[in-house]
Amino acid sequence: MAEAVKELFPNVLLAIGPSIETGFYYDFDMPHKLTEEDLPKIEEKMREIISRNEKFERQEISKSEAIKHMRGAGEIYKVELLNEIPDDKVSMYKNGKFTDLCRGPHVKTTKDIKAFKLLSIAGAYWRGSEKNKMLQRIYGTAFESQKELDDYIKFLEEAERRDHRKLGKQLDLFNIFQEEAGAGLVYYYPKGAVLRETIENFLKSEHRKRGYETVIIPHIAKADLWHTSGHFEYYRENMYSLKVDEQEYVIKPMNCPGHILIFKRKLRSYRDLPIRYFELGTVYRHEKSGVLHGLLRVRGFTQDDAHIFCTHEQLKDEIVKVIDFAFDMMKVFGFEYEINLSTRPEKFVGTKENWEHATEALINALKSKGETYRIDEGAGVFYGPKIDIKLKDAIGRLWQGPTIQVDFQLPERFDLTYTGEDGKEHRPAMIHRVVLGSMERFIGALIEHYAGAFPVWLSPVQVVILPIADRHFEYAKKVRDMLFDNGIRVEIDDRREKIGLKIREAEMQKTPYMMIIGDKEAGSNNASLRARHKGDLGAVKIDEFISSINEEIAGRK
Amino acid sequence: MAEAVKELFPNVLLAIGPSIETGFYYDFDMPHKLTEEDLPKIEEKMREIISRNEKFERQEISKSEAIKHMRGAGEIYKVELLNEIPDDKVSMYKNGKFTDLCRGPHVKTTKDIKAFKLLSIAGAYWRGSEKNKMLQRIYGTAFESQKELDDYIKFLEEAERRDHRKLGKQLDLFNIFQEEAGAGLVYYYPKGAVLRETIENFLKSEHRKRGYETVIIPHIAKADLWHTSGHFEYYRENMYSLKVDEQEYVIKPMNCPGHILIFKRKLRSYRDLPIRYFELGTVYRHEKSGVLHGLLRVRGFTQDDAHIFCTHEQLKDEIVKVIDFAFDMMKVFGFEYEINLSTRPEKFVGTKENWEHATEALINALKSKGETYRIDEGAGVFYGPKIDIKLKDAIGRLWQGPTIQVDFQLPERFDLTYTGEDGKEHRPAMIHRVVLGSMERFIGALIEHYAGAFPVWLSPVQVVILPIADRHFEYAKKVRDMLFDNGIRVEIDDRREKIGLKIREAEMQKTPYMMIIGDKEAGSNNASLRARHKGDLGAVKIDEFISSINEEIAGRK
Repeated sequence: MAEAVKELFPNVLLAIGPSIETGFYYDFDMPHKLTEEDLPKIEEKMREIISRNEKFERQEISKSEAIKHMRGAGEIYKVELLNEIPDDKVSMYKNGKFTDLCRGPHVKTTKDIKAFKLLSIAGAYWRGSEKNKMLQRIYGTAFESQKELDDYIKFLEEAERRDHRKLGKQLDLFNIFQEEAGAGLVYYYPKGAVLRETIENFLKSEHRKRGYETVIIPHIAKADLWHTSGHFEYYRENMYSLKVDEQEYVIKPMNCPGHILIFKRKLRSYRDLPIRYFELGTVYRHEKSGVLHGLLRVRGFTQDDAHIFCTHEQLKDEIVKVIDFAFDMMKVFGFEYEINLSTRPEKFVGTKENWEHATEALINALKSKGETYRIDEGAGVFYGPKIDIKLKDAIGRLWQGPTIQVDFQLPERFDLTYTGEDGKEHRPAMIHRVVLGSMERFIGALIEHYAGAFPVWLSPVQVVILPIADRHFEYAKKVRDMLFDNGIRVEIDDRREKIGLKIREAEMQKTPYMMIIGDKEAGSNNASLRARHKGDLGAVKIDEFISSINEEIAGRK
Repeated sequence: MAEAVKELFPNVLLAIGPSIETGFYYDFDMPHKLTEEDLPKIEEKMREIISRNEKFERQEISKSEAIKHMRGAGEIYKVELLNEIPDDKVSMYKNGKFTDLCRGPHVKTTKDIKAFKLLSIAGAYWRGSEKNKMLQRIYGTAFESQKELDDYIKFLEEAERRDHRKLGKQLDLFNIFQEEAGAGLVYYYPKGAVLRETIENFLKSEHRKRGYETVIIPHIAKADLWHTSGHFEYYRENMYSLKVDEQEYVIKPMNCPGHILIFKRKLRSYRDLPIRYFELGTVYRHEKSGVLHGLLRVRGFTQDDAHIFCTHEQLKDEIVKVIDFAFDMMKVFGFEYEINLSTRPEKFVGTKENWEHATEALINALKSKGETYRIDEGAGVFYGPKIDIKLKDAIGRLWQGPTIQVDFQLPERFDLTYTGEDGKEHRPAMIHRVVLGSMERFIGALIEHYAGAFPVWLSPVQVVILPIADRHFEYAKKVRDMLFDNGIRVEIDDRREKIGLKIREAEMQKTPYMMIIGDKEAGSNNASLRARHKGDLGAVKIDEFISSINEEIAGRK
């Protein structure tokens, strides 16, 4: 691609062009402002270069020679990159008249490139820094066969159709008022709030069933707590701080220290354990503005967070219970999953022995469930190893889901104790766990998973009543009230619009059920029912519909 | 009292001693450290002075003469006070050998003092500033008859018994970890969280019924929003701010700007109005550490907040609906009430015409309800007049409750509009309202109102199962599970303690129902029931008890 761009626009300077997970990109510095219309032209030129069957030749030359070459060609970006390579020798690849600095490997000739497509154009600062010049980036992808490329393009279109930012707007769920109110901070519109509260209420009742107790803590606290926990040392750049009465305070980036204070409020005996504290805890963490992305990467989010305080002997059983809990939730929301085990990172606190003991507890729990898992070496958090469960959505993408983390450090740092059966003081273990993770990220994943067509129990509007003409409004309102009084989320579309348009818009809104009220229905205790994507289901009695939809909602189908 | 103190401790310097709502106090600077034991001695001396029948003589003298007198007596605090009095003449009161600076009036002679009592000692900085010397304050009270004094002392004891800070600890509801985590920030323990969530769930369903939509906004936002709203100008000292990406952000002290952003997300027509946005919104406001008090005056609290956007024509009806809502809630929680109308303060925004129009809307709504109200001149917030409803608790004390505020300023400042029936653009009106107010303050009031003995629907633990001996544990657990599965908040006291002790502790915890399981009950599907403060109710069938308590809970009795 770089060769093609260079042939079409001779004034281009080459910056950097790596392969990435989804294909490749290249950053160019050029006077011509690239547009979508340039992409087919570049592709055309690429096909021409492929048909030339140019051989890729690898040359290993000294760094100084390479710098001389690039300086001669005016390629200042390449010179900057070369100057930072520590080795004496570098590799260059040459095909036809084109030479580029590259670690390789390459295919043998341009002819080996079977299927490719340029995908998009973006602005990108040189080396990712806003202080540098903005360059032009072209993204593309390549596959070994046209079939694979076609599948991937279809996948991209499908992902685009499911984009939660687009659907969030279309379905009126949420917004981030980046300009007015700040980046990465989510505002839930009424329909988004209904969706979130429905999930939250479900979570609360599931936690109650499983022996968790709810606690509530404030969003700000003295920085001291974070000095004790170690977050100040290891996590400081992600924390928002402020002054209160000339003391340093922090907006909580996690809930653990607060829950620990609550645990510590009284003397504990082995008979009290395990203690499981649950909170839908909203936390704030600073992320660079460049990495923020819709609901998936934000600065403020609510975790379905819990901390389990238990004896070391109870650890395995508690982990198994959390895994079961997570699996039950995945089933309800229709996700497949993959399991990762993240082990000790470079920066860590505590002893290696404790880390091994904690890692073992996680492995034993997974083994006892007969689950297979990948090991992610060094990907644990500084205070303990963890199990990460990734959700696999309807089109096979993975999303960050439940995490279960074993921690012997915070009990140590906060000097937590309980009196054992032996009458002596012991240190409890702690499990940090989230089941859905961040509500924001989970809702983002849910929107894309269902492409916005939520099951009835999650739909912000479950039924929309569509009167055909003015004379049907009165009965339509009666039907609306009956449904509302039975706890159903119902709206009425009483605009003076054609019924066809009302149906189309309700379909666009992905409302599960439409009840059409015309002359035949008015006053009959019936309505004409339509289901989303399924069309007309014929006449239903209102009371029968109420019991059937309430059954569907209760069953979370 | 000052005369008595002076006679007992000749080295005392008099600072200031006003009458206050509940009696009087006097601040002294003296080497002797006062203790509770000094109070009877001072009272004794006061009775002696009363029996001397000293006449109070009022003298009007020039300020310079008064200063000369006080300087001569070494009364440096009085000199400081005198220097700040703008008038040329001041009044002094003399009785016996004692002279004090006082505006008056006084009773005629000391003999007129019929019934008094000294209540407590406290430290108090001179003029309330931490930079000044700490003085010693004595609080007292006085009445026209011994009967009134006795009643008041009884009232104080009753208030002490109901103190929400004491009960909060005893009932394990909440705590403020002032040292570790910061002043004025509340941590809800599991039982306190249950109480709060029970109230919140009730509020949510009541708001849904009354046509409110829930929204959710973040706790931090760009300061710009608060510049637009005017809070930055009028409320800055109470706002917590921080830097994000080198821009000024604020921890929200109120929810209005966020709800306004959500209102503004699309074009609005008169057909959309009224729009009512509800949120259990947690806000943070800086209060001086000296005024913080338990749950009643805090730095972080959650409001049952709503903003109603409506046409000016809808204003009165919407206010009436909010008043009805507030009255319904007061009835559920068993509070009487008093109504205040707060009018334009000195610092205000907007035109006087708009203020009059807004005040009139509030008055008309109150009149249409036939409610009497007091006018609190100048006590409105800077952007609009408001109705304040004070809750009157079981022992007659008033608590801040619902507030309803009409606002034409924010719609102006945020340029809110809707298209009227006439096709033209109009400015909506806004109502800010809370029904219970701050959850923290309301829960504080509730604890004191019920003296911790909550009605069953609010009780954190509704039933406690008390097995008499080890052999009854199994059946007791079965009963526990039956109740738990039926949604009842139930605990089991399976310690190896005497049943009498278990009952006493359950009474101390003010648990509404106790189910005692002994030989007679085990396996019989019965239990022996006790009700809080009522003693033994005899044998009950478990399933019958479940339906009767669930009925009691549903009825919020």
